[in-house]
Amino acid sequence: MTSVVSGDGDVAGAAAAVGERSDAVLAWTRELLEPALRATVATLPPRIRQVGAFHHGWVDERGEPVSGTPGKLVRPALVLGCAVAAGGDPAAAVAVPAAVAVELVHNASLIHDDIVDGDATRRGRPAVWSAFGTPKAILAGDALFILAVRAATRLPAPMVEPAVVRLTDTIQILIDGEQADLDFESRTTLTTAECLAMAAGKTGALLECACALGAQAAGADGAGVRAYGRFGAHLGLAFQLADDLLGLWGDPALTGKPTGSDVRARKKTLPVVAALNSGTPAAAELTVLYENTGAPLDTATSERVLDLVEQAGGRAWAQARAFRELQRALHYLHVARPLPGAEKDLTAIAELVVCRGH
Amino acid sequence: MTSVVSGDGDVAGAAAAVGERSDAVLAWTRELLEPALRATVATLPPRIRQVGAFHHGWVDERGEPVSGTPGKLVRPALVLGCAVAAGGDPAAAVAVPAAVAVELVHNASLIHDDIVDGDATRRGRPAVWSAFGTPKAILAGDALFILAVRAATRLPAPMVEPAVVRLTDTIQILIDGEQADLDFESRTTLTTAECLAMAAGKTGALLECACALGAQAAGADGAGVRAYGRFGAHLGLAFQLADDLLGLWGDPALTGKPTGSDVRARKKTLPVVAALNSGTPAAAELTVLYENTGAPLDTATSERVLDLVEQAGGRAWAQARAFRELQRALHYLHVARPLPGAEKDLTAIAELVVCRGH
Repeated sequence: MTSVVSGDGDVAGAAAAVGERSDAVLAWTRELLEPALRATVATLPPRIRQVGAFHHGWVDERGEPVSGTPGKLVRPALVLGCAVAAGGDPAAAVAVPAAVAVELVHNASLIHDDIVDGDATRRGRPAVWSAFGTPKAILAGDALFILAVRAATRLPAPMVEPAVVRLTDTIQILIDGEQADLDFESRTTLTTAECLAMAAGKTGALLECACALGAQAAGADGAGVRAYGRFGAHLGLAFQLADDLLGLWGDPALTGKPTGSDVRARKKTLPVVAALNSGTPAAAELTVLYENTGAPLDTATSERVLDLVEQAGGRAWAQARAFRELQRALHYLHVARPLPGAEKDLTAIAELVVCRGH
Repeated sequence: MTSVVSGDGDVAGAAAAVGERSDAVLAWTRELLEPALRATVATLPPRIRQVGAFHHGWVDERGEPVSGTPGKLVRPALVLGCAVAAGGDPAAAVAVPAAVAVELVHNASLIHDDIVDGDATRRGRPAVWSAFGTPKAILAGDALFILAVRAATRLPAPMVEPAVVRLTDTIQILIDGEQADLDFESRTTLTTAECLAMAAGKTGALLECACALGAQAAGADGAGVRAYGRFGAHLGLAFQLADDLLGLWGDPALTGKPTGSDVRARKKTLPVVAALNSGTPAAAELTVLYENTGAPLDTATSERVLDLVEQAGGRAWAQARAFRELQRALHYLHVARPLPGAEKDLTAIAELVVCRGH
């Protein structure tokens, strides 16, 4: 078995079938990952455990179990998918601790980012700081970061040191990307290159780590691990571009965030920065709206901003760039010589993350 | 050479000589540790590095070098002292990555605790959040926690996995202790047992980890590592009791914190909780003052609180308990069968941390 979904593989290429395939991969990931993730979060100290369970969508603010809305588990799907692709145990059990680690890093960073960005909503529910207060959210984020590293120590012994090194170095790059994002808020001019470098840190690094760790757990050689890593890194850029597009034109029901919150807060996301740098008349008007750093933009002005970003070519640029990064990602996936069924699964996941609702 | 200070050892016991001996051990620690600590902090991403250097007292808010007021390096001194005591290389070089890791955990937790507690001053300078804002302080604390784990991967290969496991498990206990401290603020009744358990987590766990890692790096067996760990754990409790006493009656020039800040904020530190539970008339008056959770206490009321804690026996209890924990610590140090000179050095450090200025 070389595929994580059952089926004969003749369906790839058709959009609906890609959707089915990615759904199947994500369902398989959830089945394999969630027991391990729950067991790992259960090792948190009692006072922190409930906050961790809340953030993962398993309980409400009072600790009562809910049928929640956890994340899509894209990162664990990449860890496990790359492990299968690199010839690992079809159950990918060997890579599960790495998948848990990567998902925990992601969730830790979300808890802290929501404080840093002042975002009160996450996945359609209150952000942790909003539900439990900032002090508890700081401590819970710390605990999840550390729990991620601890999870990696449950990999087979020879992998522990390289995995901890890769994971901790990745977290530093991720933090640096977050800091860059924060610094950019007070900058009046920004290039798309600067923003892409920031996105590579903020989003690309953890996807690179996910794919590399999965392949490494399955015994891939250095060249293979690097190729899977490049797949993840480019996919991460495509993902961030898609996410920024969703932040502007996405359906709040899908994003879990209030409509237009990125615009109202004048976030300099990639489509906006591309528009600001376009040299068009729309860019000039947009620049004025973004230079005024007073109150959040009202609804009418927010709608004007969306029109201007589109007129200035920011939307088209971001879509084209996302597609290019996706093509680059799939090139490196091919270079890695994955087992055929797993390549289709990973391609379906890659297309899913780039093509959500826009 | 079995001692980290030169000298013939006939000086132990005399208070002034203990001070000289601990000064010498701390100076030796600084010489061995600081280059490694600076080199490790220098590996942080550029945007975070300056904040890390500021917190360590090496640069000011603008990044200009200063002859700073860094911490005393008690924890690294324990790591290196226990390594020497357990028969490690006299230069204790093998344990330096562990000493760096433990100091970084301490500093990471201080950065986040100052946000959590709203403390604007640290070591007589602005706290990181006060100098750079809360978002940057959250990210810098994250980066230092992760850097601590990364530092531990630089230990000799067979030690990496156990060290990362011990360090990450310790950080969870420390975070749980911080969370307990936070939860206690809103509790109307607290027992000294609850507060001692909290202090064991908040302070004892990292000192236990420091001593155990140092001994382990030097090749101590399981029983030895456990005994050094117990030495650190009891010393940590003694340290916290001493710290709480300093917070009430200490010289601000020594503590680096404004006079009476713990009292004004009605912090339920160990001497206060002992006083509140004393069943004395002073306890009744103190209870009323602590139940009112309005504005911070004014200077006159703060002075009254100090008198009441003293009258209720809180000060005497904390001093006696600190002394008892110190004796227990020294018992376990003896059980560990350290090399004689190193035992004197560790005893001097232990007495230093418990007997500072009260």
